[in-house]
Amino acid sequence: MRATIVTIGDEILIGQIVDTNSAFIAKSLDRIGVEISEMISISDDKSHIVNTFLALQNKVDLVIITGGLGPTKDDVTKKTFCDYFEDELVVDAAVLAHVTQLIEGFYKREITQINKDQALVPSKCTVLHNQVGTAPGMWMKKENTVFISLPGVPYEMKYLVENEIIPKVVREYERPYIMHKTILTYGQGESMVAERIEDWENDLPDFLKLAYLPSPGRVRLRLSARGTDKEMLERVIEERVASLDAIIHDIIVGFEDEDTIDVMIGKMLKKQGKTIATAESCTGGAIASLLAATAGASAYFKGSVVSYATEAKIDVLGIPDALIKKHTVVSAEVVSAMALSAKRLMKTDYAIATTGNAGPTKGEVNAEIGAVFIALATPTEVIVEEHNFGQPREKVIDRAVFSSLELLRKEILKNVL
Amino acid sequence: MRATIVTIGDEILIGQIVDTNSAFIAKSLDRIGVEISEMISISDDKSHIVNTFLALQNKVDLVIITGGLGPTKDDVTKKTFCDYFEDELVVDAAVLAHVTQLIEGFYKREITQINKDQALVPSKCTVLHNQVGTAPGMWMKKENTVFISLPGVPYEMKYLVENEIIPKVVREYERPYIMHKTILTYGQGESMVAERIEDWENDLPDFLKLAYLPSPGRVRLRLSARGTDKEMLERVIEERVASLDAIIHDIIVGFEDEDTIDVMIGKMLKKQGKTIATAESCTGGAIASLLAATAGASAYFKGSVVSYATEAKIDVLGIPDALIKKHTVVSAEVVSAMALSAKRLMKTDYAIATTGNAGPTKGEVNAEIGAVFIALATPTEVIVEEHNFGQPREKVIDRAVFSSLELLRKEILKNVL
Repeated sequence: MRATIVTIGDEILIGQIVDTNSAFIAKSLDRIGVEISEMISISDDKSHIVNTFLALQNKVDLVIITGGLGPTKDDVTKKTFCDYFEDELVVDAAVLAHVTQLIEGFYKREITQINKDQALVPSKCTVLHNQVGTAPGMWMKKENTVFISLPGVPYEMKYLVENEIIPKVVREYERPYIMHKTILTYGQGESMVAERIEDWENDLPDFLKLAYLPSPGRVRLRLSARGTDKEMLERVIEERVASLDAIIHDIIVGFEDEDTIDVMIGKMLKKQGKTIATAESCTGGAIASLLAATAGASAYFKGSVVSYATEAKIDVLGIPDALIKKHTVVSAEVVSAMALSAKRLMKTDYAIATTGNAGPTKGEVNAEIGAVFIALATPTEVIVEEHNFGQPREKVIDRAVFSSLELLRKEILKNVL
Repeated sequence: MRATIVTIGDEILIGQIVDTNSAFIAKSLDRIGVEISEMISISDDKSHIVNTFLALQNKVDLVIITGGLGPTKDDVTKKTFCDYFEDELVVDAAVLAHVTQLIEGFYKREITQINKDQALVPSKCTVLHNQVGTAPGMWMKKENTVFISLPGVPYEMKYLVENEIIPKVVREYERPYIMHKTILTYGQGESMVAERIEDWENDLPDFLKLAYLPSPGRVRLRLSARGTDKEMLERVIEERVASLDAIIHDIIVGFEDEDTIDVMIGKMLKKQGKTIATAESCTGGAIASLLAATAGASAYFKGSVVSYATEAKIDVLGIPDALIKKHTVVSAEVVSAMALSAKRLMKTDYAIATTGNAGPTKGEVNAEIGAVFIALATPTEVIVEEHNFGQPREKVIDRAVFSSLELLRKEILKNVL
């Protein structure tokens, strides 16, 4: 079973917004065994949309379209659907009732004609109920291909994928089994890892595919298997991961199904009943906001002092002025003091601290561009790492955030063992 | 002049990573008058890549490809280039020298064969020098279409776009003039704005295109013009924006060329010599990290106290326990006290504070899910806003962040006038 994802919107083609919808839809479909053949972004132009539909007709089973369903003139998807399916727009009574309730009942506003027009749908379509917005989803079949239209607003699209599309596809289609296992390695580059596992990789059976996903400082290895015999696939993946672990055990820091590192850390802390705080300079609160983004974070995340200015390090964290004068703000001594201070102030088990120069200039502190010190205060000690993450600024911040989280994860894992 | 952007990578098609490269490339090309016809994401599969190239051959002037240039087995772009152009890989001496210098000189590691293979390029290609990584860019022409291959690592791709591709396209091609003007509105929904400006919109000349870009709580209106007479386009856009401003002056909060609101706020604060701090609960440091992400932020951003736990509000911000007991942590009184405390602790001119319940459960504070209080302490007063941002969690956090920044911008603008 194959699907293509089509996003419609001039704002995507001029680079004004990043398309995050496609990745969400792809991940949701992949999980139930639907293969994504392509993702395509096209303009809000009727003939462009129709030509894209024609090219996909009978080539794939599903075409999932996002965008172009809003109430304004630049949104043309609904009219184009009518043209393509030789259909006409009719008022759907259930959608109209829902839109009226949302506008008048929840937002306490008078309903306008433009609001009411949201209830217009092609007469032949199956309406997908959008509980969290006014634009409904639409499901229409032509020959061997189903075309599904969804609003572009991310949380509305997500609601419809999770509550309408996935259940309907699972009910109505037979699908193969797709399995991924991601192995997280840390500390060696892509080419170094590739050399070490070359023989292992060459020996993989045909139905297993290996991919390298490098990021600054870490490489994720993704093994993918596809087939109908679920148990066999699981067994083979397990065996191959074990033989891989025997080769590069020193750099493997964990496994990932779908969790990102911040979510994994949250789960581990919650399980252990431990708490965390941060004291951030060059990362500016990015570690804190990642930790706080997960639902239920209040069980383990207490807070952060973002001491961006030197004064804030002195006034809020209580770092002695003399210590800063002696070692400068970008130093092992200051970052240790920051971590200890955050741990004490926020009364936590762990605290992460960062200080460095993300660039693009040397600035008043006169530290090398890219130089970052990371400290982790644990219940028993303070661990300090010194890095040079090079340039540019966004890379330095990104690497500082993820190196901090990797350090934290490794330490939490130690305490599990 | 038209271009198509092609991203290669199975990790994109299974939704493991979000493609941010395409938006960057699109924005860079749009600025110099190159129109993006489509963006396509495809798998690391030779025949899929070749079929995509065949479909684009002579249809567009430029095809910009990212991904598939790494040193490992899952990366096939370079070999596919050779097939498509009937060419063979040869060692490029300059690239080899650069790779050797980077690995041995900067990373202080022994160079491996896999590293050396990065210097293999198709013999007919023009090499684009990648100063910040080991995989070079490649520029190859076939008939009327140029195919450009770039590494998928974002900062390497950015380096090559900014330093190699844009200058080369500007030198070698004639392009039309493209102009966008984005008007930021705040406080009314898309359909409401559309009704108010309907007559104005219907009266726009054909070469002007209007798009609505709605986000929770705000709508950006983008006017785009394309043509050869730069002065005429600029004049017409200016006139139309002025007539729009006369209609919806009450909801227009600013104009945007390419700056996002956090960058704009930074510029305004820097210009006025004013400083900012934050005290964040439900936003968890997201406002601070946005402010700190901009180069030069230390001129105006002093720091933040992320007081996620109630104890942190008491211990670090010094909010009286009695005040919290009387009004609860999600209240106008507590958020005001947080803003004033951050302003005092960090010695700034402005301070933003947030407190609320982002969900998904009511939690210990028993506040409504979606309820958020925002306070802005200015040099002369404290302004408090009460919101209910509904659900889900990510929407609540996102709206709290941007509503805070909008409030701050409006206040800073007042002080300019």
